[in-house]
Amino acid sequence: MKKVAMSAKVPQYPMATVLVGSHVNGKPNFITIAWFTMVNFKPPLVAVVMNKKHYTNKGIKENNTFSINFPSGEMVEATDYCSTISGYDADKSKLFDTFYGTLKSAPMIKQCPLTLECKLVETLTFATHEIFIGEIVEAFTEERYLTHELPDIKKMNPIIYTAYDNDYWQLGEKIGRARHIGRRIKKN
Amino acid sequence: MKKVAMSAKVPQYPMATVLVGSHVNGKPNFITIAWFTMVNFKPPLVAVVMNKKHYTNKGIKENNTFSINFPSGEMVEATDYCSTISGYDADKSKLFDTFYGTLKSAPMIKQCPLTLECKLVETLTFATHEIFIGEIVEAFTEERYLTHELPDIKKMNPIIYTAYDNDYWQLGEKIGRARHIGRRIKKN
Repeated sequence: MKKVAMSAKVPQYPMATVLVGSHVNGKPNFITIAWFTMVNFKPPLVAVVMNKKHYTNKGIKENNTFSINFPSGEMVEATDYCSTISGYDADKSKLFDTFYGTLKSAPMIKQCPLTLECKLVETLTFATHEIFIGEIVEAFTEERYLTHELPDIKKMNPIIYTAYDNDYWQLGEKIGRARHIGRRIKKN
Repeated sequence: MKKVAMSAKVPQYPMATVLVGSHVNGKPNFITIAWFTMVNFKPPLVAVVMNKKHYTNKGIKENNTFSINFPSGEMVEATDYCSTISGYDADKSKLFDTFYGTLKSAPMIKQCPLTLECKLVETLTFATHEIFIGEIVEAFTEERYLTHELPDIKKMNPIIYTAYDNDYWQLGEKIGRARHIGRRIKKN
């Protein structure tokens, strides 16, 4: 099949959607993002990529802490709302119930199946975005999201975003076991 | 519901699975990863997070180029295979059909619905991993993956990975339109 050049821009691929939280002027604020990744195992470091103009960034810089909250599909409206209006223009502190871990200034969302409490370790600056690299100090879930004591992705029901169609999606069907299904090739 | 602390480690969330390619000793090599993210719009920059021990890293450093290849669900066995065996131990250069763009040393996989050709702009080093930040020089797809000239995620059929269960998944059902569904809240 003939390849078509699409020009260099943001690719179309599934991204988990999260709410990044910080304390700005003493109040919780949350912004919806889909650009983040783990960057190290030990210590567990995560990078969140934020447009420089976001209100939440101020709080991360003030407190050197932030949270990452993984919403469930039932929270899709509130999650999307946090992407449509800035903390500069609206008070988002009452939108969710919040709780805190040992860091005290990283507000986490009770309604989210999984939340991470992070300590800022490095900030990197690019043209339009900045990357906050945080160490995960603690992760929180609830018994109802576990199966055999492990977090169950289907019970968590995460929200996945794709950019070109601008849609949110659920996770679909299982298609294979990692570091297992490929062994069929290895043997041949 | 009572929150349960899970200890600080890699969270459970859906990650797109990609094959990162480079030329090592003049031959294409590919490694499967799920830790990557976009980091800037203009120019379009992407960060791939790689365990330092990977063979592919050598090629990225030698040529200052790499590719990111998004496999489809039909490619799950070959994709998984590339995560189970190192380029130090096996020649993966014949596993896929490859093609090149203007960079010449960033081997792209013909079978993948979407491939990115990247020029290395920065390398960041952490304890166990290193981050290669690349500028996307060109992106390639095929007509059959487009709908109304835009990349169609359902036609691309990407592979999603989750760590705790160690499974690959398809994308599921659409649950809402981004920057739209949240407006119901905004108006109230």
